[in-house]
Order: sequence, then C-alpha cells, then structure tokens
Amino acid sequence: MLSKTEIKEIKSLGNKSGRESEGFFVVEGEKMVGELFASDFIVHQVYRTGKNLTASEMVRLSFLKTPSPILAVAEIPHHYDQQQNISAEGLKLALDDVQDPGNLGTIIRLADWFGVRDVYCSPSTADCWNPKVVQATMGSILRVRVHYQPLVPLLEDIVSAGVPVYGTFLEGDNIYKSELELGSGLDSGVIVMGNEGRGISAQVESMITQKLYIPPYPADMETRSESLNVSTATAVVLSEFRRRLAHA
Amino acid sequence: MLSKTEIKEIKSLGNKSGRESEGFFVVEGEKMVGELFASDFIVHQVYRTGKNLTASEMVRLSFLKTPSPILAVAEIPHHYDQQQNISAEGLKLALDDVQDPGNLGTIIRLADWFGVRDVYCSPSTADCWNPKVVQATMGSILRVRVHYQPLVPLLEDIVSAGVPVYGTFLEGDNIYKSELELGSGLDSGVIVMGNEGRGISAQVESMITQKLYIPPYPADMETRSESLNVSTATAVVLSEFRRRLAHA
Repeated sequence: MLSKTEIKEIKSLGNKSGRESEGFFVVEGEKMVGELFASDFIVHQVYRTGKNLTASEMVRLSFLKTPSPILAVAEIPHHYDQQQNISAEGLKLALDDVQDPGNLGTIIRLADWFGVRDVYCSPSTADCWNPKVVQATMGSILRVRVHYQPLVPLLEDIVSAGVPVYGTFLEGDNIYKSELELGSGLDSGVIVMGNEGRGISAQVESMITQKLYIPPYPADMETRSESLNVSTATAVVLSEFRRRLAHA
Repeated sequence: MLSKTEIKEIKSLGNKSGRESEGFFVVEGEKMVGELFASDFIVHQVYRTGKNLTASEMVRLSFLKTPSPILAVAEIPHHYDQQQNISAEGLKLALDDVQDPGNLGTIIRLADWFGVRDVYCSPSTADCWNPKVVQATMGSILRVRVHYQPLVPLLEDIVSAGVPVYGTFLEGDNIYKSELELGSGLDSGVIVMGNEGRGISAQVESMITQKLYIPPYPADMETRSESLNVSTATAVVLSEFRRRLAHA
C-alpha cells in the first residue's frame, strides 16, 4: 500500500533539512490530529491504521515509541517567519538557544496556558516542527505562534519602544518582591529564557532591562541545586507575572 | 581492561531489576560525580576515560548520548525505604504514578530548590535510580530523600494528624487566591502530583483535604491547552507556596 518513497519522505520529516525541503511536519495521536483538523493548518495527508495502512506500516512511519492509530502530515505555516517586529501589546517569550526538544515543547505548552501568543526563538534554538517538540506541546503548537529570528536586533527595537525585557539571573531581583517595570501594564513585556547549560548569551543579556531571580527556599540557604530546569523556571516566571496581573 | 562481565553488570543498572539485584546506581558527568564524592553516598567504582578505560569502552558503558569522561557506580541507600511515617514538619511532595523519568528527575530538582526534603512516590512511579532520572536531577537526587510506598495508608496517617494534603484539580480553588489550610504554617503539608495522563487516582483523591487549581490566563478564557505538564505544574505550586511563606 505504502510506497518506499512515501515512507522515506515522511521519515525525512524527522530532520530539519527534510522538513525544510518538504515544507511539512508530522502530528500524531487522535487528540492532537483532531485539534489539527479543527485549526487553520493545512493538512496534507492522513494515515490511519486499519484504513490506509497496516499496523506494521504505522510502526515504520511513526516517531513515537508506542505508535498511535493516526498520523497526519501538515504544512509548516511560513507566514510566521515574516513577522519582523514585536508589538508592544501582550506578554511575549524569547528563547535564546533552548536546545532540548522536550523543554521547547513544554515551554510552548506553558505559553498557551498562560496566554502568551508569540514565542521568539534565536535561530539556534531547537526547531519547533521537530516531531518530539510537536508531541511535547500537546497541541499548543497549533495555537502559539513560534518565530525564528536573531534576538538582538529584535530586542533592540523592543527596548527603544519602551517595552521591558526580563531575564532570570543569579544576581537578579527577587521575582516575588520585585516591583517589575510595568510598561503598559504587566501584559506588556518580553521574558527571555536562556540555553540549558550557558543561560542567556552576553549579547542578549545587554538588552535585558530588568534582571529577575527565583529565590530558593529558604532564601538565605546556601543554594543546593545550582539552578532550575529552563522549562520549570519559565513556569515560575509566567505564573508570577499572571498572578500579579490577575490579582493586582 | 574492562571485562565483558563488568560491562554487562554496569549496563544491567539501566534496568530496575538489575539495580535491585546489584544494589547500585550510575552517576555520570564530572560535576555530578564530584557532588557524589562530597555526599554521604557510598561510591563503589569509578571509571575515567584515559585512566582505567578507553574512550570506546566509555561509549559502551555510558547511558548518555554524549558520554562524559567519568562514570561512577554508587550504592542505593536502602534506609530511605524504611521510613514509614511522615513527620508533620516541613512541606512534602507525594507522586501518584508519575511515569516519565524526565518529569521525575525535574520534580526532584524542583524539590531541592524549594526546600522539600522528602518526596513520597507510589510504588508504580518511575524509579528514581534510573540513569535518566539521576541525570535529570542534576545532582539533587543526592540531597532529596525519595521514598517508595503505597500513598493511601501514608496519607491517611497524615490527614489524621491534621496535616493538610493538597492536589491540583480542574475544579479546585484558584491557587493564587486560595487561603490554603495553614496547618502549622505553610511549611507543613503534602502536595500530591498525579500521573501524566490520568492525574491523581480516585483512591488518593479521597485523601486530599484541599483541591487547588492553577488558572490559565486570562482566567475566563476558554481553556486552550487542557493542562500543564506535571513538572511545570509542580513548579507553579511549589513557587506559590514558598512565595507565600517567605513573604507572608
């Protein structure tokens, strides 16, 4: 039923080069494929076990350890790439070289939960159309707009427009006590999260207008772990911003 | 240099049955092995590239995609298993069938950061001595005590002692607005986190004294993503408890 060429083409979507040449990405699982059909994304092809392919063919196609009965191939929306400026409205995330696909997917899912519509990624950040990222977003990739572009010129424009740019640093202000630069309310600003090992790069750091710090507990304790994982740190920062705005 | 038996024994530590019969677990990377030596854990054996084994032997031993130059084998501390009761002092975590090793490791790292010394796991929760969990803790496994025991009798004792038991549910109270049952201050209580797909089991749910909810933003928005990942939800809950206690 399934030709060797077809299998090869779909498996190539596991690599960035394959996705770039084909222009497609893969979505698996009944729930997420259902959400895909309900979205504005253009679905190119759908494979269903027992319909147009066998269970063993699905095992060959799937990027999951335990394949689901449905796999869809959809078009990568290229209009995301064209947005060059950030509007002053709304809280945004900027990711400076987040490498782990699981972390990126979890951060996109957090953005969706906490009402962050746009995520700006440095070009070296993991690719959001990687099947591992798509699955980790649990469907949020269909709602959050992920952009790839160099962060420095982008943040320069943002800072000139008077919008605050936040980042977490060991020498930052206690996030729970900090007044935060309100800009046009806490619903304006960019939160930068850095690489898993190196944190925020020096170039991007120079764009930060307020450094924040998530204190350990107790705060005066000699810090035991050195830091939080980037996705859990993002959770704490977004939660605190949204708590303040909702309950100010 | 390295015998086949030795390689086989170390590789067996990747499985729970192997760890149970050998009584050892694996720690990799210079930083974490350094912390291991500084801890009270008993180190059984150390392998170093260029010292007692070659780079290609390390590739065979290692559980990492990119092996580090050092791998240690240490004793699993069995005294953790013997603690049957939870003291009323201190905030604790209880994990009801958290399955993903990455999530478990990240939660142990969060516990370390937010001063949670004990984590109680249902017997079906992922094994904390799994190499993937150990690596994801970034060394926190050496400081946080992880216990495995059925949660229901344990939580029954806790509730009878008047200690609050919290869990997150869609129908729970807004965590930011909730008064929380203070017990003997916010530094007393157990926070239960559930399985990635099914959440908290019905049996454990009946032990919860206060149901909490992390609201999406905006709170009145039709929820887009269905939930948060268990490790990021743990981050939000621990952060909010610690914020309240530190800044009450």
